[in-house]
Amino acid sequence: MATAGMVIKCKAAVAWEAGKPLSIEEVEVAPPQAMEVRVKILYTALCHTDVYFWEAKGQTPVFPRILGHEAGGIVESVGEGVTELVPGDHVLPVFTGECRDCAHCKSEESNLCDLLRINVDRGVMIGDGQSRFTIGGKPIFHFVGTSTFSEYTVIHVGCLAKINPEAPLDKVCVLSCGISTGLGATLNVAKPKKGSTVAIFGLGAVGLAAMEGARMAGASRIIGVDLNPAKYEQAKKFGCTDFVNPKDHSKPVQEVLVEMTNGGVDRAVECTGHIDAMIAASECVHDGWGVAVLVGVPHKEAVFKTYPMNFLNERTLKGTFFGNYKPRTDLPEVVEMYMRKELELEKFITHSVPFSQINTAFDLMLKGEGLRCIMRMDQ
Amino acid sequence: MATAGMVIKCKAAVAWEAGKPLSIEEVEVAPPQAMEVRVKILYTALCHTDVYFWEAKGQTPVFPRILGHEAGGIVESVGEGVTELVPGDHVLPVFTGECRDCAHCKSEESNLCDLLRINVDRGVMIGDGQSRFTIGGKPIFHFVGTSTFSEYTVIHVGCLAKINPEAPLDKVCVLSCGISTGLGATLNVAKPKKGSTVAIFGLGAVGLAAMEGARMAGASRIIGVDLNPAKYEQAKKFGCTDFVNPKDHSKPVQEVLVEMTNGGVDRAVECTGHIDAMIAASECVHDGWGVAVLVGVPHKEAVFKTYPMNFLNERTLKGTFFGNYKPRTDLPEVVEMYMRKELELEKFITHSVPFSQINTAFDLMLKGEGLRCIMRMDQ
Repeated sequence: MATAGMVIKCKAAVAWEAGKPLSIEEVEVAPPQAMEVRVKILYTALCHTDVYFWEAKGQTPVFPRILGHEAGGIVESVGEGVTELVPGDHVLPVFTGECRDCAHCKSEESNLCDLLRINVDRGVMIGDGQSRFTIGGKPIFHFVGTSTFSEYTVIHVGCLAKINPEAPLDKVCVLSCGISTGLGATLNVAKPKKGSTVAIFGLGAVGLAAMEGARMAGASRIIGVDLNPAKYEQAKKFGCTDFVNPKDHSKPVQEVLVEMTNGGVDRAVECTGHIDAMIAASECVHDGWGVAVLVGVPHKEAVFKTYPMNFLNERTLKGTFFGNYKPRTDLPEVVEMYMRKELELEKFITHSVPFSQINTAFDLMLKGEGLRCIMRMDQ
Repeated sequence: MATAGMVIKCKAAVAWEAGKPLSIEEVEVAPPQAMEVRVKILYTALCHTDVYFWEAKGQTPVFPRILGHEAGGIVESVGEGVTELVPGDHVLPVFTGECRDCAHCKSEESNLCDLLRINVDRGVMIGDGQSRFTIGGKPIFHFVGTSTFSEYTVIHVGCLAKINPEAPLDKVCVLSCGISTGLGATLNVAKPKKGSTVAIFGLGAVGLAAMEGARMAGASRIIGVDLNPAKYEQAKKFGCTDFVNPKDHSKPVQEVLVEMTNGGVDRAVECTGHIDAMIAASECVHDGWGVAVLVGVPHKEAVFKTYPMNFLNERTLKGTFFGNYKPRTDLPEVVEMYMRKELELEKFITHSVPFSQINTAFDLMLKGEGLRCIMRMDQ
């Protein structure tokens, strides 16, 4: 392409400081260096994690920064050593990577790549410790290696999944983060059998994606657990057959679930990160075969407590990260699930705004309205 | 057989009261009723659980009682409805059963049979709530459905594994309980891969059986953890390559294990039942793929505590009971592992005494000497 090797000037939404509205600026995007790829972002979505690091409460602030990590784009140019991608390839950026060389990447069981594991404090590329974004020569920091709130961004090749070019990027872009996280937690980790009973704790986008996984796996009873009764109606579209609001009961919600399922659910997936929900999820599964999967990230100080007999009666507790998907190896197949109409992504996309109105997307999320808001970069 | 349908008079070791030496008595053994089998015991071993319920500390006492649950025998006669066993069949009694009709038995994942799950307080047969043992007409209580400290005993058909008649009963009798429990915890639940690193907490008979499983699975590094340094020498016969005594370190043993294995062991099997060891086992496994398996039974009041991030980094914690073996379905194949010389049972059998000297076997166990003491019923 004509721009390969050159600095590209384009629009990006810059977070100049914590909690202040983003500002659309013209930024310079340097060419990709060794093992890096410059990607033209076509669509980006907003995820809670962006908002969390934009608010930056109790964190070391990393500003000015270009946030964004759920997106779909097209390769513009590639740096030295990149052989797997060529300009024109359709890609999904992912906040965690796959170097294919470390012990985790070589293990069938792990996706916690040693080299490219998520690092929320790093604002630069790992190759040379520099940013590829500048405004008037001054660096603007990256975010989790993706920074998709920009028309062009530079990403390590290990953090890009090459997908079917026929897949609509305005839909599959949501597979970059939360939806895959919930879906994989159920399909790859909980693995419910056809006809089984599954409880999902927390009915936000991740929880509903976990629920979508349960629906796809053929679960016959899917119990949604949430403190907000308004969530039930939306959850029905994802296969929710029963709804339990812990506030409606005087006994612990795990006891309620055990009673209503004659001994416990077959699988539970915890997507809130609240310690009480984590404990409830681990205790509401059936003895003998129950599996509880933890997805939600807890407070650092939270302590998980239970009676060990709950485990000894043949229960399993597992944690997962990004749904145990290896980004480069596994995401292309998740896109194919959508193409085969097994996975329904449209249900997750409740809003769409031009990129220029990115602060509207932030407002929607702060108000808790909708699931995913897609931003069109060309508008 | 000539004795079928008749009361058999034979010798049994009766525990008249808690903690007092057993007394060899002549008992009457009634014929088996519906779904029951009368078994001539040829060899019985002594397990900690016998001693625990003989001491009966902090328990509802069930005396007089015939203890014993690790044994090998031959079917003498069968009750109504028993079609799977005939007189002459070689069998291993098991303290937990398999009815083949409940949800657990029908699940591939569970062995916690609803009907015949271990019940340590019950001293009678489940069919009619009566004992089959009497002395001078007065009932003597059963123990966990097996009561193998008797030349003849009556057992529910669901608690008997029919095994290869060529298998030496004086060896394979130890598969009735502890050895299968440890072995299965590793082979069926932890499932270490060839070349992996496995930590075993507690080097008693169950822990050494878990270690034997790791050896059989081809683990290349097997780390024994025990507070008694004398255990290392014996453990070497079971494949132990490294020994860690938590008392030798000022930091928690999980940290010691993580450091000596560059990030954690691939699998850990906890066989002590001590809550600190349970927590250590769950925290010493590698992120991404580590699996910790809990075998040892804790005090009722013990609370398992950990930081939930230990799970979220893709660790798995599972509990097991009787090594996840379904007694009738799976034990015959464990016997075949011994027959094929894959599983070495001789290492576990450190003592042998005539049945008449059963109190010597109790003394050895109370002193912590040896692993298994086999009692020959005909002596």
